[in-house]
Amino acid sequence: MGIVRNLSDRISALRESPTRRIDAIRERLRRENRDIIVLSAGQPSIPPPPEIRAIMAEELAKESMDLYAYTPSQGIVELREAVSEDLKRLGSLDVKPDDIVIVAGGQEAMFATLMTILNPGDEVILMDPTYFGYKPLIEYFGARIKRLRLSMDDGFRINVEALKELISSRTKAIILVSPDNPTGSIISEDVAKALVDLARDKDFWIISDEAYRTLIYEGSHVYLYKYAPEYVISLNTFSKDPGIPGWRLGFVYGPREITSRIKLAAEEMTYCPPSFAQRFVATYLRSEVRLKHIKYVVEQYRAKRDTAVEAIRRNLPEARFVVPKGSMFIFVDLSKYIDDSDKFAEFAMEKYSVALVPGSYFSEQYKAAVRVSFVWERTDRLVEGIRRLAEAAKAYKAS
Amino acid sequence: MGIVRNLSDRISALRESPTRRIDAIRERLRRENRDIIVLSAGQPSIPPPPEIRAIMAEELAKESMDLYAYTPSQGIVELREAVSEDLKRLGSLDVKPDDIVIVAGGQEAMFATLMTILNPGDEVILMDPTYFGYKPLIEYFGARIKRLRLSMDDGFRINVEALKELISSRTKAIILVSPDNPTGSIISEDVAKALVDLARDKDFWIISDEAYRTLIYEGSHVYLYKYAPEYVISLNTFSKDPGIPGWRLGFVYGPREITSRIKLAAEEMTYCPPSFAQRFVATYLRSEVRLKHIKYVVEQYRAKRDTAVEAIRRNLPEARFVVPKGSMFIFVDLSKYIDDSDKFAEFAMEKYSVALVPGSYFSEQYKAAVRVSFVWERTDRLVEGIRRLAEAAKAYKAS
Repeated sequence: MGIVRNLSDRISALRESPTRRIDAIRERLRRENRDIIVLSAGQPSIPPPPEIRAIMAEELAKESMDLYAYTPSQGIVELREAVSEDLKRLGSLDVKPDDIVIVAGGQEAMFATLMTILNPGDEVILMDPTYFGYKPLIEYFGARIKRLRLSMDDGFRINVEALKELISSRTKAIILVSPDNPTGSIISEDVAKALVDLARDKDFWIISDEAYRTLIYEGSHVYLYKYAPEYVISLNTFSKDPGIPGWRLGFVYGPREITSRIKLAAEEMTYCPPSFAQRFVATYLRSEVRLKHIKYVVEQYRAKRDTAVEAIRRNLPEARFVVPKGSMFIFVDLSKYIDDSDKFAEFAMEKYSVALVPGSYFSEQYKAAVRVSFVWERTDRLVEGIRRLAEAAKAYKAS
Repeated sequence: MGIVRNLSDRISALRESPTRRIDAIRERLRRENRDIIVLSAGQPSIPPPPEIRAIMAEELAKESMDLYAYTPSQGIVELREAVSEDLKRLGSLDVKPDDIVIVAGGQEAMFATLMTILNPGDEVILMDPTYFGYKPLIEYFGARIKRLRLSMDDGFRINVEALKELISSRTKAIILVSPDNPTGSIISEDVAKALVDLARDKDFWIISDEAYRTLIYEGSHVYLYKYAPEYVISLNTFSKDPGIPGWRLGFVYGPREITSRIKLAAEEMTYCPPSFAQRFVATYLRSEVRLKHIKYVVEQYRAKRDTAVEAIRRNLPEARFVVPKGSMFIFVDLSKYIDDSDKFAEFAMEKYSVALVPGSYFSEQYKAAVRVSFVWERTDRLVEGIRRLAEAAKAYKAS
């Protein structure tokens, strides 16, 4: 049988996630007992609060199906209520529990949302740089990507006039990641207002990716939903806070006409979100540990960010970057040292045992940049990793 | 903005899962403090083994990200190895860990598999009756359903000659659920062999849904993969065994050309399967508790099945059914009592406080049948539920 012939045409467009490629090389070197310093990870290094883990350990002792049974596809009421209260407390938002859909992580939030709104031929506007996870999904659903180039020179600020140029009658959505992955920049209130005015005027969705919403070191998160609840679909994850990336839990909030359909899409994809994680996060969000934990995590990560910034300045004087206000990353332009970030990332891993994500995954313009995660490794290893990165960049330049 | 206009055309075809409708009525009655006997649930009543839960409770105390971090999208090696060993032990199968993809439950197995193989215009053959979860997915991916009618009179045996009549050059796959939901019938070895011969001859996929593989009360599971590993994609879940439906974990095995692509599809859908559940099941499958637990569960459920069979015979002498060899269900033809199973299921719930799934969800021919789950309720309540069902059927007939 011609097995490949017997596949979906659309699936053939899917490729392995670029970070998975990096992971695979890392895995091979690990088996060779190489000690790789991981500056490529997009996940936290601080496990969720021990108090909540202790509560869940007790729950596991009970002889009942409560913890194991299917949940409503939209998520358990207790968690949707806890999320609603948390959005009020942190963002002064008024989002009803019925307008919140719990999903199996940020990836399912992305897939189910794009599955819900996109038709072939639609156009979606992405920032450049931006998180690489959206591109394959938009292409899978047959839509076309237009990119708005942001510049490091003005802190990756969105130029609304330039954005207007990209909008057409086929524009279905614009995707904003704030705090951003990979740049750590945060959208400002005035830009947010101009964007929602444009969405209203031109009739498109704003997909607001808020994965790093609670990881902010300067300033505060701008909730786009506040300005135009009828145009904004907000995607969230519990992977970064409280730090359960592998457990796959997130949520979407937005107008009920759309969230009710995202719920149906997620139901077809995974039937319901993981129940153990739902109970865990409902307990976390409602405990007094919740605000203390964010504060602790932000303090830890801010100190690491400052260490990383200082180390990059010291070791790579010709590197260019904007000090990130949020997220886990510094997006470092190495164009004074390297030309091709894909080749360089492999070189740095193979020869200098430091893992980085190439800028080309996020950008069509910053192809000589790398994304440096400052949260995953211990501080001493973070500094050593940046030293290795600098050595690699200089060696690459000389080669 | 015309919000509905701004949606995917394909998503508009998605409807709420029929059991979710039943759940919603049940939830309303529960809020009215009605005690509903639930014979509609497709999930186990026995939680996973306490020994494994105790191990995981200890793991939760550790200060490490090991339990919380992302895993490879294909699933952790330990779990894929454990599944490989388990398939060898239970089915004498030789499936390499690399040919196994761990997914976020049986629903993701179904979605990712159909996403991988279907193109618009393809044809898929479903049994009638069969599990209702496949229809909306096949339609979502733009393929056409053909149904092979099975008859209660010969124990829902597949007539291979009749099946041949349905096969065309557009036939992409046939979907077999064995042990079956809703009938509890098991495919026989001779039918299995005839089917794989046909798949080879006519060049189509056999999707083998093995969700109830370990819940067998008479006979044993036939692993279709054994007869034609290059044509069979096997879908599995850990929802029924070890009993973690809400945790969302399952697996797919099959030829690597296809599982490697199912892995990519699942990666786009949910990035990785839930890590806590992966650790849990890897520990379970490799523990000595594993075989004891299946034995215990099968004994408990067999006794309940026998109780249910006896209660149906006593209370509903004109009901017709085949004693299920596996699964959690008895598919009861009530055509001597009722005409419309949808209306009847609502009537039975509203007036007699017993929840059932209408036969119409599974079948275009058995529209006066109901699916009775015999595992979820305690034995005394199971008997009382069937008494209520009989009362409802007689009252419906008289009305």
